[in-house]
Amino acid sequence: MISFESDYITGCHPEILKKLAETNLEALSGYGSDKYSESASKKILEAAGVTDGAVFFISGGTQTNQLIISTMLQEYQGVVAAETGHVAAHEAGAIEYTGHEVLTVPGYDGKLKASDVKKFADTFYNDANHEHMVFPGMVYISHPTEYGTLYTLDELKAIRKVCDEFDMSLFIDGARLGYGLMSFDTDVSLKDIAKLSDVFYVGGTKVGALCGEAVVFTHGNTPVHFVNRIKRHGALLAKGRLCGIQFDTLFTDDLYFNISRHAIEMAELLKEALKEKGYKFYIDSPTNQQFVVLDDSKYEELSKNVAMSFWEKPDESHTVVRLATCWSTTKEDIETLKTYL
Amino acid sequence: MISFESDYITGCHPEILKKLAETNLEALSGYGSDKYSESASKKILEAAGVTDGAVFFISGGTQTNQLIISTMLQEYQGVVAAETGHVAAHEAGAIEYTGHEVLTVPGYDGKLKASDVKKFADTFYNDANHEHMVFPGMVYISHPTEYGTLYTLDELKAIRKVCDEFDMSLFIDGARLGYGLMSFDTDVSLKDIAKLSDVFYVGGTKVGALCGEAVVFTHGNTPVHFVNRIKRHGALLAKGRLCGIQFDTLFTDDLYFNISRHAIEMAELLKEALKEKGYKFYIDSPTNQQFVVLDDSKYEELSKNVAMSFWEKPDESHTVVRLATCWSTTKEDIETLKTYL
Amino acid sequence: MISFESDYITGCHPEILKKLAETNLEALSGYGSDKYSESASKKILEAAGVTDGAVFFISGGTQTNQLIISTMLQEYQGVVAAETGHVAAHEAGAIEYTGHEVLTVPGYDGKLKASDVKKFADTFYNDANHEHMVFPGMVYISHPTEYGTLYTLDELKAIRKVCDEFDMSLFIDGARLGYGLMSFDTDVSLKDIAKLSDVFYVGGTKVGALCGEAVVFTHGNTPVHFVNRIKRHGALLAKGRLCGIQFDTLFTDDLYFNISRHAIEMAELLKEALKEKGYKFYIDSPTNQQFVVLDDSKYEELSKNVAMSFWEKPDESHTVVRLATCWSTTKEDIETLKTYL
Amino acid sequence: MISFESDYITGCHPEILKKLAETNLEALSGYGSDKYSESASKKILEAAGVTDGAVFFISGGTQTNQLIISTMLQEYQGVVAAETGHVAAHEAGAIEYTGHEVLTVPGYDGKLKASDVKKFADTFYNDANHEHMVFPGMVYISHPTEYGTLYTLDELKAIRKVCDEFDMSLFIDGARLGYGLMSFDTDVSLKDIAKLSDVFYVGGTKVGALCGEAVVFTHGNTPVHFVNRIKRHGALLAKGRLCGIQFDTLFTDDLYFNISRHAIEMAELLKEALKEKGYKFYIDSPTNQQFVVLDDSKYEELSKNVAMSFWEKPDESHTVVRLATCWSTTKEDIETLKTYL
Repeated sequence: MISFESDYITGCHPEILKKLAETNLEALSGYGSDKYSESASKKILEAAGVTDGAVFFISGGTQTNQLIISTMLQEYQGVVAAETGHVAAHEAGAIEYTGHEVLTVPGYDGKLKASDVKKFADTFYNDANHEHMVFPGMVYISHPTEYGTLYTLDELKAIRKVCDEFDMSLFIDGARLGYGLMSFDTDVSLKDIAKLSDVFYVGGTKVGALCGEAVVFTHGNTPVHFVNRIKRHGALLAKGRLCGIQFDTLFTDDLYFNISRHAIEMAELLKEALKEKGYKFYIDSPTNQQFVVLDDSKYEELSKNVAMSFWEKPDESHTVVRLATCWSTTKEDIETLKTYL
Repeated sequence: MISFESDYITGCHPEILKKLAETNLEALSGYGSDKYSESASKKILEAAGVTDGAVFFISGGTQTNQLIISTMLQEYQGVVAAETGHVAAHEAGAIEYTGHEVLTVPGYDGKLKASDVKKFADTFYNDANHEHMVFPGMVYISHPTEYGTLYTLDELKAIRKVCDEFDMSLFIDGARLGYGLMSFDTDVSLKDIAKLSDVFYVGGTKVGALCGEAVVFTHGNTPVHFVNRIKRHGALLAKGRLCGIQFDTLFTDDLYFNISRHAIEMAELLKEALKEKGYKFYIDSPTNQQFVVLDDSKYEELSKNVAMSFWEKPDESHTVVRLATCWSTTKEDIETLKTYL
Repeated sequence: MISFESDYITGCHPEILKKLAETNLEALSGYGSDKYSESASKKILEAAGVTDGAVFFISGGTQTNQLIISTMLQEYQGVVAAETGHVAAHEAGAIEYTGHEVLTVPGYDGKLKASDVKKFADTFYNDANHEHMVFPGMVYISHPTEYGTLYTLDELKAIRKVCDEFDMSLFIDGARLGYGLMSFDTDVSLKDIAKLSDVFYVGGTKVGALCGEAVVFTHGNTPVHFVNRIKRHGALLAKGRLCGIQFDTLFTDDLYFNISRHAIEMAELLKEALKEKGYKFYIDSPTNQQFVVLDDSKYEELSKNVAMSFWEKPDESHTVVRLATCWSTTKEDIETLKTYL
Repeated sequence: MISFESDYITGCHPEILKKLAETNLEALSGYGSDKYSESASKKILEAAGVTDGAVFFISGGTQTNQLIISTMLQEYQGVVAAETGHVAAHEAGAIEYTGHEVLTVPGYDGKLKASDVKKFADTFYNDANHEHMVFPGMVYISHPTEYGTLYTLDELKAIRKVCDEFDMSLFIDGARLGYGLMSFDTDVSLKDIAKLSDVFYVGGTKVGALCGEAVVFTHGNTPVHFVNRIKRHGALLAKGRLCGIQFDTLFTDDLYFNISRHAIEMAELLKEALKEKGYKFYIDSPTNQQFVVLDDSKYEELSKNVAMSFWEKPDESHTVVRLATCWSTTKEDIETLKTYL
């Protein structure tokens, strides 16, 4: 059995384990006040070109989304997202749990369009009843999206422009950010992400860490008493070192970028292998997640040897599956896969 | 500088690091469905003598308290706790964030009394206005408490009895459970905890893990769709293996109990050292947390070489500090401390 | 200036004022425990043919929706509604405020289709990830809808069937229920509403009362400690008599039905008048709300003499407006309107 | 049977009924945008000497408390109140429902002390862990209190000073404000209330209205989009006229003050009557609520003819009851009561 089930099937990059072991007996203060968290923050801010920002480490993605959205929105505001966005579709109502509505616009292979957001906001403000509606206060996008696709720099700028026009903040969910930045097919840099967003996060869980996401407030806009708010949301780790050491390692010697690039290279090999065998792609993804349409019989057969993620049923007799690469995927894995295709 | 600041100053027990490294490249499914989580659950249930229960792993204590309390209470109910209880005093309103009130009763060195809980419930039900009040639906106790003290078996039984009388569930916060069970001065076993409570958790973060608490529903009473609820609360780790492997290691060959016992032994040496030097104890604690009253000048002097936790100011010229031992405390640490006392 | 702006432009039916005056000095207990509330409840249950139910009076519609939905759903559940449903579109996020998502299906002139609900539920349960999604726990429909349209008895039965199949409750928002029941074009009776739903409400605010909605739990399914929950939601009136007396009056000698029928008759005259003058209807509504498409110039002109509700802009040069009749609309009002058309 | 059960046992002052009847057929816009609401707002602001304020009408007291507290607090803040304060004791957790903790200080006959609030805030800010605690963000007092007692002007100024020192807002719950202002034993005017508080409300439900409380933001500090927030909380009445007309009437020709004074005069007669018969007062109240300690046998006997409110059991054989007067209490009522004493 070979697994391409997700990008969180293995533990963490060996460098992280090594660093955890090296620092294991150092006595450090808790709740993120340790020197590794501080060092990691500095490195991330520097890499992102942020001079007036702050970094906080949260253990997982849904928690991060929940925390950012609910602390940055006013109570009368909701967050605009593609209908396929993670916050809209796959977080079991975690955003609504905080009292905020996810205001959906159409998704195009996982992406939203600036023009749709503008239309939504225009319609809202033109409605005489808008005091009886939820104000659009933030735009949420994931980059890469849940479908592995990427925004172009122009698209991001267009979204930013709409945000400025309607006084909305822009939140970029970077659960898989590394795979986006290291794609062969992108013109968006980490500095662009930081410059264009009000807040984003650098995903760790899906990019080589055991757990952890690094939230970056980009323009001196950290919500007041943010540590208190993290605590209140149940999201403050006592051993803040766990995330601090991991991100400090990932942002030393470009490890985060190098392992992301490796996953992209493996994804390219994967795509080639699939194409050679005539597999049909559901979506053209330039990142580490690949979506393939299978005959149900083929799906059943392949499942005996290859772990994949069920994605959806486009019709009665086909199944869309996701195959993902990550830092730990090897050429041998691809070769093994080929023998089953 | 030597640190007794808390029981989460160091990383994790080396056995855990070793196991994380050994399993690092195994491809495992996410969200707690991996074999290590399954194995850890079985071991915990067996150690606790629970035949009709379930275990879930959550990354931290406040999140666990928040999750358990809000999913087990009905919306019209609150949770009864000592005024010094963690949920009442030090979680930044995390319980209220879920919409539930913490109904406080007096704390005696961190413990609540069954008789006070009974009085509270009696008063509530005798009040003709009780439909305008918050129903007491659960009793929360920590064992050990935030002051390092322990309930006796008789005290726990008395609390259970009051819970039964007023149809309240009993939740035991075991963030430091190991230190309670391995105290030289307790008659309460893990099986007692499981038998007497409706839900409890085995603390990992403060007892040798990098993070993680193992929630145990003890009598076939897991809230319906509990995984969904964990997700909704932002508390579901994608790499569930992180907690699974840690707890599987801790519950192999009695590691959890042995390292807890070690911390207790170190605490006894610490107590002796302090007593010899004439230090005054604020509370008589039979577990790993020791509370000492210092002259402010002494506090200042000692702080130069010893990291401790400020606890409170009992008067103008004194300070109460906490010194904690844990799995990583060594005899040498105690000896070093002695040179500063 | 003549107003057809809404069905809440005038005070209340004179019989209600009379009854309020007659009972004004009677000393009554508070919070809904008075004899008029009791009498009103009995009359409503009898009219609805409910033998094992309960009635509660709430001051307004949004509050009622919020209260019912949040007390009947489990925390992991959301409510399915048409995208145009009041709870989805015009309550400023009141449902999300309680932590629950509104799961939208297409709206057809304000109505949802049983087949769409079934498809939604099927898709949900077929998704392997449904533990990461919001469970559909209730279906919300308004009858009449926000567009004045009505479900047929067969349509309601089909919705009920889907609810039964997927273990969802059915909530019928009857803010304008009287106008639905008294329409010339309906085969649905109050008893049908009660029989097919798990909970519904009889709207008072928009059907002749100063304020108030009568919530009916239809099958012995009142949420436990419901008065406490009303209080907790801030929705318990101290002078419960205010709603009690109003509904007792409305349900004496069929007043509720008679005034609703009157509004329907006025709506038919209104439709005739509009048709005669060649006005174009946006929707074919058999109840008291009529929707007309106007040239913007006509809209501007008419607005000088006729108060209407802006509804939406179907294109650049037209406006949809709503004209509503109610208990207080007179033939003279229609005649006056005609002079402006 | 004669009733002194509460100050909401009868309907409303006849002037209100008259005005409701007179305006009944006027077509008015909804949601508080009618001319009567506007007129009432102006009159209230003028009476309170507020030049940069705003008034909103809410149907009941708990809802008002819930709305004000949750919209004025930041998410990391709680509200400080006497342990006997309505928000702490008798609202079924309505404040916690909004996610905020009620931080209690001792109550002295229903009042809190500025010095206790200062001590609370001092302790909070001196605690090194205050990021793990709930910030005190507002002080809530009721005037008159739930025990009928009143703050002196000096006491209010002292509370204001502490609020300023710790950057807390001051909210005065005036559910029974009229009875406080018209007490024979007060030096506090409506203008003092408005000047010293950030927000307060003029109670209607318990002072002659059918329902309704007038919230006054006193210093240009209305929360942004407040109408939207009222809607979101389910507290926006469609027929805003209901409150508008009532308060417009109450604030015409000093009706509010005159009927409050009448209730105070009746309360003085009540006190005399009770004193003459040797009844023991539980508390010395200068307003319309009187609290008397009765032997249980006397309580039982008296209850046959006099409706009173059970308050509490101070010991095994006594009961504290409340007798309240209001606008509708007559001298004859007091005479009748005397015959039963």
